[in-house]
Amino acid sequence: MTKGTLVALTGGVGGAKLAAGLARLMPAGKLKLIVNTGDDFEHLGLQISPDIDTLIYTLANLVNQENGWGRRDETWSFMQALGELGGETWFRLGDADLAMHVERTRRLRAGETLSQITATLARKLSIASDILPMTDHRVRTRVETDAGTLDFQDYFVRKACKPTVNAIRFDGAEGAQPAAGVIRALEDPDLRAIIICPSNPYLSIDPLLSIAGLRERIATAAVPVIAVSPIIGGAAVKGPTAKIMKELGIAQCSLAIAQHYRGLIDAIVLDHADRHLAEQLAIPALVTNTLMRCEQDRERLAEECIAFAAQLHGRTRAGA
Amino acid sequence: MTKGTLVALTGGVGGAKLAAGLARLMPAGKLKLIVNTGDDFEHLGLQISPDIDTLIYTLANLVNQENGWGRRDETWSFMQALGELGGETWFRLGDADLAMHVERTRRLRAGETLSQITATLARKLSIASDILPMTDHRVRTRVETDAGTLDFQDYFVRKACKPTVNAIRFDGAEGAQPAAGVIRALEDPDLRAIIICPSNPYLSIDPLLSIAGLRERIATAAVPVIAVSPIIGGAAVKGPTAKIMKELGIAQCSLAIAQHYRGLIDAIVLDHADRHLAEQLAIPALVTNTLMRCEQDRERLAEECIAFAAQLHGRTRAGA
Repeated sequence: MTKGTLVALTGGVGGAKLAAGLARLMPAGKLKLIVNTGDDFEHLGLQISPDIDTLIYTLANLVNQENGWGRRDETWSFMQALGELGGETWFRLGDADLAMHVERTRRLRAGETLSQITATLARKLSIASDILPMTDHRVRTRVETDAGTLDFQDYFVRKACKPTVNAIRFDGAEGAQPAAGVIRALEDPDLRAIIICPSNPYLSIDPLLSIAGLRERIATAAVPVIAVSPIIGGAAVKGPTAKIMKELGIAQCSLAIAQHYRGLIDAIVLDHADRHLAEQLAIPALVTNTLMRCEQDRERLAEECIAFAAQLHGRTRAGA
Repeated sequence: MTKGTLVALTGGVGGAKLAAGLARLMPAGKLKLIVNTGDDFEHLGLQISPDIDTLIYTLANLVNQENGWGRRDETWSFMQALGELGGETWFRLGDADLAMHVERTRRLRAGETLSQITATLARKLSIASDILPMTDHRVRTRVETDAGTLDFQDYFVRKACKPTVNAIRFDGAEGAQPAAGVIRALEDPDLRAIIICPSNPYLSIDPLLSIAGLRERIATAAVPVIAVSPIIGGAAVKGPTAKIMKELGIAQCSLAIAQHYRGLIDAIVLDHADRHLAEQLAIPALVTNTLMRCEQDRERLAEECIAFAAQLHGRTRAGA
């Protein structure tokens, strides 16, 4: 694998953890991380890209490890002062984190693309992997709930995922094109595998797959596509994945994840807790410990995914 | 004076000190502070109004007393992180201070005027005096120097006032109208006096006087107009006033200040160090201690200015 490139699709916290493990194993420039931007929003006049930032902070080893997002050793003077001025404080922006949003917003207004900006800022923080926003166009995740149709952050942060979800849609996805770097990464003749990180399939990976042609490019790639299930024994590690699956009438089970990605993935990675599900699947499964509690966990899981992909790649090649 | 209203014209640090003294003596709503906005600029996509902020922080007792501007107990995480991202750091924005710029910028974009925003933010910080930006139009101070024509903050902060000044101009002033609140304050039948604070006449007060009709409204007001000289014994208390006067070929002397305001002011307040100049003036002078080192100094000078105005006001009335 070290001679080829690897693409990983990722959303926020869970995906970033595996991405960080992969980044430690892959040579500089060989790991391409395609990131969800459906959660992006404008707030306080700033352009905020939560999943990109979580990924940048995680890879730059700046992340707040307790939260999984935001910066560690953060200060909160801005938020405090903003509250005193009567400003909106429901979305917590740390002082150091603000630099990212201010600089991104400034550069976007100056005409740079989100892809260019992300590459520049990641390079400044010495990140050796390529962080590729799924698109430079505007795609916005909206959640249809019993409390009406909500902007993603309104649902996710302001309302703390409490409303019941009826449907999820991705405004702008149909007209959006994958970013140029995304297409290059998927068409790279050195590409060896595509890994779908254990992010929320419905909120974090689906926006990506809804962009014109992207799902098809992945499904028809000549390399193994492997998903790491975000469900362990019927529960999500973090976030509202299990709750949303229930509300959407989907069994909270890794089988449902495999079903959701049917036609797209060639194999799946399951936790030991779901070992019994492996035989019910029509695709190969790697059973391992998928819970990433520390850096060693991330790296080990990343290593296993890479080895699994290499094994499948060999099989694919042998079959070709 | 407590039954009437008072108008003061002010720029940054020096003016804000006297304004704070006046604010402690005047009843709520009776002090109207007309503030220079020629120093305003857009930086990092944020709309920054340095003189308004210095005044707000000073009146709200939030100011960094060592600098005279910015907030005390400030943190600098944003600036540090911005530097790491390769952003511009020559204009130092503290974390709490940022809230002011972000909230102002957001409200301006939403269509509020600078006057409305300033009133709202000042009210949030329990400021009982009216802070009135000189205009809601865009006026920008530009400094013609031996290093070319510079934006004010470029000259003042980035180049630390080092270039030699040949001329100062106020782009947009001719087409700018005084803000509605400014006109109301000057036309108030209860107005008792107008005080020109010891701000830099050339950089901080002239922008104000260059706005269509404002100089005339002040010059023809039926109340005493008093300037407090920012020069003490040939030196400016703070900032580049004396250096600029020298470069513009003006004697660094309170006589030159009186000359500069000729036709506009009815009286001047001089420091004891300039006692000998009083007799060379064609207008009444109050000689006192004009250096404001502490709150007591501010309040005493404010009290003396108010008493001086009342005395002149009586004289004006008697003469009318």
